[in-house]
Amino acid sequence: MPTAWDRRYAQRTQRMQGSAIRELLKVTELPGTISLAGGLPASEIFPIEQISAVAQHILEKKGRQALQYGPTEGYTPLRELLAHQLNQQGFNVSRDNFVITSGSQQGLDLLGKILLNPGDRLLVESPTYMGALQAFNPYEPAYVTVRSDDEGIVTSELEAALQQASKGLYVLPTFQNPSGVSFTLERRQQLIELAARYGVPVIEDDPYSQLRFEGEPQPSLFSLEHTRLQQGEQRGQPYEGNVVMLNTFSKVLTPGLRVAWIVGPAQVIRKLVLAKQGADLHTATLNQMIAYELTRAGFLEEHVPLIRKLYRERRDAMLAALEKYFPDGTSWTHPQGGLFLWVTLPENIDTAQFLKEALEYRVIFVPGAAFHANGGGSNTMRLSFSNVNEERIEEAIKRLGKLLHTRMSRA
Amino acid sequence: MPTAWDRRYAQRTQRMQGSAIRELLKVTELPGTISLAGGLPASEIFPIEQISAVAQHILEKKGRQALQYGPTEGYTPLRELLAHQLNQQGFNVSRDNFVITSGSQQGLDLLGKILLNPGDRLLVESPTYMGALQAFNPYEPAYVTVRSDDEGIVTSELEAALQQASKGLYVLPTFQNPSGVSFTLERRQQLIELAARYGVPVIEDDPYSQLRFEGEPQPSLFSLEHTRLQQGEQRGQPYEGNVVMLNTFSKVLTPGLRVAWIVGPAQVIRKLVLAKQGADLHTATLNQMIAYELTRAGFLEEHVPLIRKLYRERRDAMLAALEKYFPDGTSWTHPQGGLFLWVTLPENIDTAQFLKEALEYRVIFVPGAAFHANGGGSNTMRLSFSNVNEERIEEAIKRLGKLLHTRMSRA
Repeated sequence: MPTAWDRRYAQRTQRMQGSAIRELLKVTELPGTISLAGGLPASEIFPIEQISAVAQHILEKKGRQALQYGPTEGYTPLRELLAHQLNQQGFNVSRDNFVITSGSQQGLDLLGKILLNPGDRLLVESPTYMGALQAFNPYEPAYVTVRSDDEGIVTSELEAALQQASKGLYVLPTFQNPSGVSFTLERRQQLIELAARYGVPVIEDDPYSQLRFEGEPQPSLFSLEHTRLQQGEQRGQPYEGNVVMLNTFSKVLTPGLRVAWIVGPAQVIRKLVLAKQGADLHTATLNQMIAYELTRAGFLEEHVPLIRKLYRERRDAMLAALEKYFPDGTSWTHPQGGLFLWVTLPENIDTAQFLKEALEYRVIFVPGAAFHANGGGSNTMRLSFSNVNEERIEEAIKRLGKLLHTRMSRA
Repeated sequence: MPTAWDRRYAQRTQRMQGSAIRELLKVTELPGTISLAGGLPASEIFPIEQISAVAQHILEKKGRQALQYGPTEGYTPLRELLAHQLNQQGFNVSRDNFVITSGSQQGLDLLGKILLNPGDRLLVESPTYMGALQAFNPYEPAYVTVRSDDEGIVTSELEAALQQASKGLYVLPTFQNPSGVSFTLERRQQLIELAARYGVPVIEDDPYSQLRFEGEPQPSLFSLEHTRLQQGEQRGQPYEGNVVMLNTFSKVLTPGLRVAWIVGPAQVIRKLVLAKQGADLHTATLNQMIAYELTRAGFLEEHVPLIRKLYRERRDAMLAALEKYFPDGTSWTHPQGGLFLWVTLPENIDTAQFLKEALEYRVIFVPGAAFHANGGGSNTMRLSFSNVNEERIEEAIKRLGKLLHTRMSRA
């Protein structure tokens, strides 16, 4: 029975796709199935007791504020604390450079909303984060994909893309979702120079950089841009750079609270606040206060190392199992942190098809095609190690390896 | 110093206005000022202890789920409970008719997102809820305003407007924000008939209907539409009507949790879920579980009467003070529930200008122009009685009345 709504949907709803995979994965998270698909944080180390204690304390001391409407830009002490933390690392920012968002997913939506007209060229990595495509799609950009390799985005190809007009660049430079790859320092520097030369807004998505297992920490693009300006024309002045950065409590505390933030030029933040006012008025006050109190108390400094340790063990287990069970002709990334790695199979294997076979063996993963804005990647897949224990990781990779051996020897 | 972001903002950002008033009101909420502007729920009766207890219980029993990512459509038991509650009143709905949103503000944003192309004619009341305009504005509709009187939207004028193509109709039929007016049953029935005849999607915003102080409860438009279909062609079938309805926990529990919902045809809900996936993935899990547990336990049935009683006393105080202190030539609505009433001054008084004078006397309100999609209403103002005690209400109205006497005798 059609309603008045049918045939009236906005043009942009045609771009609201890409969740078919999520739907598939949801229905297939059956008992007994080992999921390398979800990419969820490990819930067994959520600091439940600490959150409960701090929630109680907040409700007791500031309950009326915690449960009332709050300012759109976010809980002021939290914005001030985030600014203070950056300033201790040598930045020159204030609370006016921050807006609190309901998860970084909302940050991506708001950035799409203030930046993208239909048809605008938006540069993204290939592969890139599927959720970012879902956030941007309703604003109907024309994606321009730029290839990445083991060192991150290929800056020579980025420059070629920038030679045509473009509205912005979206990148996830550290332990990328889906690939696990991090940009080298050189690539980061080249990117910042190119962005300045071509005058292009850069959206840096940085949910994972705190989860480094090994290797030298790399400066964020935001940090490099800040340095470039402080050493140049903007010495001692508020940040007015090309890069905005998205950070979140989802991977270092818990995702269910839905508290994240964007740091950027105050002018851009003001536009985002206007957009957020229409989008959800403000992020839940109690949740912001929980994140604030735990951060202020230094809790993350003791908690994040536990997450790193756990994920590192799981990454190691996955790499060892891949080495042991996956056939020649397959390859994978070796991330130094984060939640994911990325497998490339021989070109004739379609991982969407392969997922159906894997399902019969009760293992699931995300086929790589969904992470490609303009097609391709049908022989790739994302494997997540964050939310599965070592034993099950080995078992899952063993099953996938066995299937691949059969399939590849058949071909 | 311009950044690459300047001059690149999307076209739609030009429509992200309307918050100038909020900004003004924010900076003017000085100590000593009596605010009739905020429209906030009364925080002194927030059930802080109950929320704290239930939060603790949830974290203890289901902490990992409460803090993990959750499904975009919302916490399943909450959607099922909401469906069950409606079905007990004779509806025929299921969880597939519900999506949980991060406040009703997000519901409005998502509805705008799935419905509105730039230039689409959207029918709204005059005056209408300012926050709805802020949600819809980025989707660049062309508003068509329909006049309201003491009985609600003027259905003869609505029919005239519907005779031209229109994309949808947004109404707030019960204790409207800003006017406090409720549609009569006859107007409601006429609206539903017109929507069916002209095939127009109806967005019914219903945050306040639980806060009725007196008078007969009126059926929601959603309920009338449901009845029309169940008594006709859709007997015994799932709801597939023209009306979607937004409800929220913000006014009956607390707004800071940011938990609300939309009920509508399953197909429309599916589109909204796709839009929400890109917009914020899901509403905070813990917050949904708190709302669920308190609703399930029947807590709202004992709590909402306390809110009604308090707001009724405050409304009475405001009406009495208006009667006592406001000069002839001014008039106001007599809402039977909700948080607001609406004052009309002589046409030559601009309330935006009058606000500046009132500020000197430390009273603030919201000038009415902001609630008009296409201009007008410059001699109107919204007064909120929900979050101010009776003594301060009388004092504020006394000050405004004195100012008005002076101003009107001067003229």
